[in-house]
Amino acid sequence: MYRTHTCGELRAENIGQQVTLSGWVQKTRELGGMTFVDLRDRYGLTQLVFDLSKNPELTELARDLGREYVIKVTGTVIERENKNKKLPTGEIEILASQLSVLNASETPPFTIEEESDGGDELRMKYRYLDLRRYPLQRNLELRHLMGIEVRNYLHQHKFFEIETPYLIKSTPEGARDFVVPSRMNPNQFYALPQSPQTFKQLLMVAGYDRYFQIVKCFRDEDLRADRQPEFTQIDCEMAFVERDDILDMFEGMTKHLFRKLKNIAFDYTFPRMPYDEAMEFYGSDKPDIRFDMKFNDLTSLVQGKGFVVFDQAEYIAGINATGCAAYSRKELDALTDFVKRPQIGAQGLVYVKYNEDGSFKSSVDKFFDETQLKTWAETMQAKPGDLLLILAGAKKQTQHALCELRLEMGERLGLRDKNTFAPLWVVDFPLLEWNDENQRFYAMHHPFTSPKPEDIALFDTDPGKIKANAYDLVINGVEIGGGSIRIHNRELQEQMFKVLGFTKEESEAQFGFLLNAFKFGAPPHGGVAFGFDRFVSLFAGLDSIRDVIAFPKNNSGRDVMIDSPSAIALEQLQELFLTLKKPE
Amino acid sequence: MYRTHTCGELRAENIGQQVTLSGWVQKTRELGGMTFVDLRDRYGLTQLVFDLSKNPELTELARDLGREYVIKVTGTVIERENKNKKLPTGEIEILASQLSVLNASETPPFTIEEESDGGDELRMKYRYLDLRRYPLQRNLELRHLMGIEVRNYLHQHKFFEIETPYLIKSTPEGARDFVVPSRMNPNQFYALPQSPQTFKQLLMVAGYDRYFQIVKCFRDEDLRADRQPEFTQIDCEMAFVERDDILDMFEGMTKHLFRKLKNIAFDYTFPRMPYDEAMEFYGSDKPDIRFDMKFNDLTSLVQGKGFVVFDQAEYIAGINATGCAAYSRKELDALTDFVKRPQIGAQGLVYVKYNEDGSFKSSVDKFFDETQLKTWAETMQAKPGDLLLILAGAKKQTQHALCELRLEMGERLGLRDKNTFAPLWVVDFPLLEWNDENQRFYAMHHPFTSPKPEDIALFDTDPGKIKANAYDLVINGVEIGGGSIRIHNRELQEQMFKVLGFTKEESEAQFGFLLNAFKFGAPPHGGVAFGFDRFVSLFAGLDSIRDVIAFPKNNSGRDVMIDSPSAIALEQLQELFLTLKKPE
Repeated sequence: MYRTHTCGELRAENIGQQVTLSGWVQKTRELGGMTFVDLRDRYGLTQLVFDLSKNPELTELARDLGREYVIKVTGTVIERENKNKKLPTGEIEILASQLSVLNASETPPFTIEEESDGGDELRMKYRYLDLRRYPLQRNLELRHLMGIEVRNYLHQHKFFEIETPYLIKSTPEGARDFVVPSRMNPNQFYALPQSPQTFKQLLMVAGYDRYFQIVKCFRDEDLRADRQPEFTQIDCEMAFVERDDILDMFEGMTKHLFRKLKNIAFDYTFPRMPYDEAMEFYGSDKPDIRFDMKFNDLTSLVQGKGFVVFDQAEYIAGINATGCAAYSRKELDALTDFVKRPQIGAQGLVYVKYNEDGSFKSSVDKFFDETQLKTWAETMQAKPGDLLLILAGAKKQTQHALCELRLEMGERLGLRDKNTFAPLWVVDFPLLEWNDENQRFYAMHHPFTSPKPEDIALFDTDPGKIKANAYDLVINGVEIGGGSIRIHNRELQEQMFKVLGFTKEESEAQFGFLLNAFKFGAPPHGGVAFGFDRFVSLFAGLDSIRDVIAFPKNNSGRDVMIDSPSAIALEQLQELFLTLKKPE
Repeated sequence: MYRTHTCGELRAENIGQQVTLSGWVQKTRELGGMTFVDLRDRYGLTQLVFDLSKNPELTELARDLGREYVIKVTGTVIERENKNKKLPTGEIEILASQLSVLNASETPPFTIEEESDGGDELRMKYRYLDLRRYPLQRNLELRHLMGIEVRNYLHQHKFFEIETPYLIKSTPEGARDFVVPSRMNPNQFYALPQSPQTFKQLLMVAGYDRYFQIVKCFRDEDLRADRQPEFTQIDCEMAFVERDDILDMFEGMTKHLFRKLKNIAFDYTFPRMPYDEAMEFYGSDKPDIRFDMKFNDLTSLVQGKGFVVFDQAEYIAGINATGCAAYSRKELDALTDFVKRPQIGAQGLVYVKYNEDGSFKSSVDKFFDETQLKTWAETMQAKPGDLLLILAGAKKQTQHALCELRLEMGERLGLRDKNTFAPLWVVDFPLLEWNDENQRFYAMHHPFTSPKPEDIALFDTDPGKIKANAYDLVINGVEIGGGSIRIHNRELQEQMFKVLGFTKEESEAQFGFLLNAFKFGAPPHGGVAFGFDRFVSLFAGLDSIRDVIAFPKNNSGRDVMIDSPSAIALEQLQELFLTLKKPE
């Protein structure tokens, strides 16, 4: 028997008991003739004490323990002289009578504490040691608990969790697939799913009504900081529903998670903001509405006054940075540098200080007098003491840049508290996006998304104007989930494939099974998928998903711990009827 | 709004209510001026009635409904004249006042009833239609509920569900891997996991203590009837435990599942049978102990009496088929044919009838007199009316054949009731298996399995004799799960790799990350993995796992519904630096 209790369990009421604990040596220290050992496991820390005068042999053994040794110790729970109020076990310690070393440890390459001294690469290589740290354990526990609560909620609402296959079929639409050569079907390949989209729709055709799955998905994309080649979705679908049935159901799930895991109760319905409004007021389809600071379109107000930058711009808009009129030259320069960064891309920044004394000072005083600036301030609902920040240029780029500036100002003004959560649904997305390079439309969501019924006629006249019956759940500027009402009608699905430039043969070859299924009584249906990694990292207060994943990959898609991917044996290639080409 | 109720919900107390239902047309029939429609959804069947005299237009519309049309109907709940006691909704019907066709359906290629008239291939191609049948829906509901209960139990016992990666590293040991070419790391491959074995061990090294995961695993094997290239495991691992801690924990889980899902309470500890005993008495490491009929080793008793078949045999053993002395010549011939089948492989069958009158009649009367046969009968605890069935030959083959014969007799005697469950743990497996072809040992379980401590010395003298600290959960002759205490000591792990014929370089290249992890304080640990598909199919009373999987593959690893695997585009191959070789 390795333990009677865990290292997080013993309290004052256990004093006098004989106990056995197992765990890792966090640290040892000497004090007079006493040796103290902090013993750690998943559940907490307990202090062990060895008394040289009473048990010299055992104490010598304890003195030799290194960091991260695995030991088993038996002893008596005694009251601690110097109580540690920060530790749940801080009232007691174990006076050891037996000690055995279960496994020794080399000195770990970094410290295993709340904050580690190891660099990113080192901690990834020794992930199993980094995972011993409590911050990572808390993340994985949170992830476990969120999974449990997602399942509780959906089970209560009569959803079935149904596993869909991982070895499926490659389709050129969407992101790049990972493929898997088939040995039994030479020269043919499976693909790993980017999502179970078509399978969950087939389950609706099959009558399952309410499906979900917490499931791995795969995308062979060039990885940015916060993307992983494999990631986890909470994938859901319902039949015989309209959009608001879905929003209500999953708003309920989101509230359930907040209540259970963050002890936060939302007593209101999440705002449902049309995409056009999100773009107009926040310049983003995932607005952070923890703070206001909406965009003000100034285009018509400020043009025609001789300021060529404005006069040539497609779009001019500003935000009101409340209480920032006293910003120094240096601070304003820093903001200008910020918006001119390549990834933000503005040409420059116009500011207007509405001073406390009611006067104005701006970077465009040459072109606009106080009366004019006052009109701007009124339009933007500014008060004395506020700072107006204005960008001008092509509409899409300027919206993007102003969105970034707004977020930056929110950050500077402390309006983006990680413990405040502001969810909303963004709805009525465009159905299609025009791609200039390939001169064709792409589905903004995916090709199975239903247009809004009133827009179907636009397929023949102006497809770019069609709104989709699609929606995203956005929290604090992060897209947590998204979905749509699907097309359940074969003719409409074919119309959609046509506008995407698929020939009948192509759509048949790729999605024939789905089009076929639609012949046999497909019910109206729709669904949503949540990015589970991102949902957990939002709850964990992290900016990256990496530390809510036990074994993440780096930006080259490598697992540096197991050193994968790697070369495989020649016989394996031969069995798969493959030969390698050297990259140039 | 598509429905106020489901098709399984309405009862007598709803009479008089106005309701809306949606679902599939199961069938329509005419009776006088009335049209009756059975409407089906996941929750049940409800009868709709259309009255030609009251609503001719609507009734005409109803008459045109085909099988599997999706409709929405509004009407009043009325009492049914001819109540259908078999149906939960059988007391009522809906007098329809509105009807809309949500989607039409072509005539499905087979009937969607409890029993379908479609052949296997057709039902696989139209799996989404086959999945509409209630037997399949019940299987998938059972699977969902088992998943929920597994998680409930393990969560209550402080396990964390932790996701391990799917894109891992290929190792030549064990079954064949599916591999995934990496685009970003040219000429290198990931492998899909055959199990999360090494990752769950790393989680123990990382201090997680109690891990589980319901997870897909992949094996590129030649498929037998009841194997799938992707299958699901309940994968579990614990640290600071001995074997019996694990058996107790997962016996608890198994009992929890039986109680919750089958309403069966086991009030005893599952038998723990050593492998040697299982082989001796049942000729199998997965004995079906729903019935007794143990093997009786007759070798020393029957040899040396001049019957050359016995005298030349390594092993002679028999079973007592209680009450079968009256078997006819034809029945005995059929049994002889059964044991001589190539997959069973016996040379012949010796029978001894212990007649009701106390006399004996055997197929070896020439060599053995009644006194001798009586000794056999006593040894085998036979009574008048019993039939002794005896096989002889090489030990291993004869055990196998007699095991099959025992199961066949159990079947014939009705001793293998699908609603009776007899679980046991088989323990103390051999650690290693000698492979004659490759002239080396293979790990019987896997290379991380710990030998029993008392057997470690045998590594130097007689490795084949070492027993493993391994165990299987067997229910009704089916291996439902298996696991072991793992090696947690680097030196012992190296010794194991050595006996398996790995060079130091090979073991470093393949499992270096695990051996490295063992340097930093690996705790004692062990675990178990359950075949989830098989567990569900056992509970569902099915012989195959196929119908507890929503979208299974056929015996060539093909998904005939989506037609996968399939060819991929040349550009995809080029991006992956691969070229295809034509199979010869």
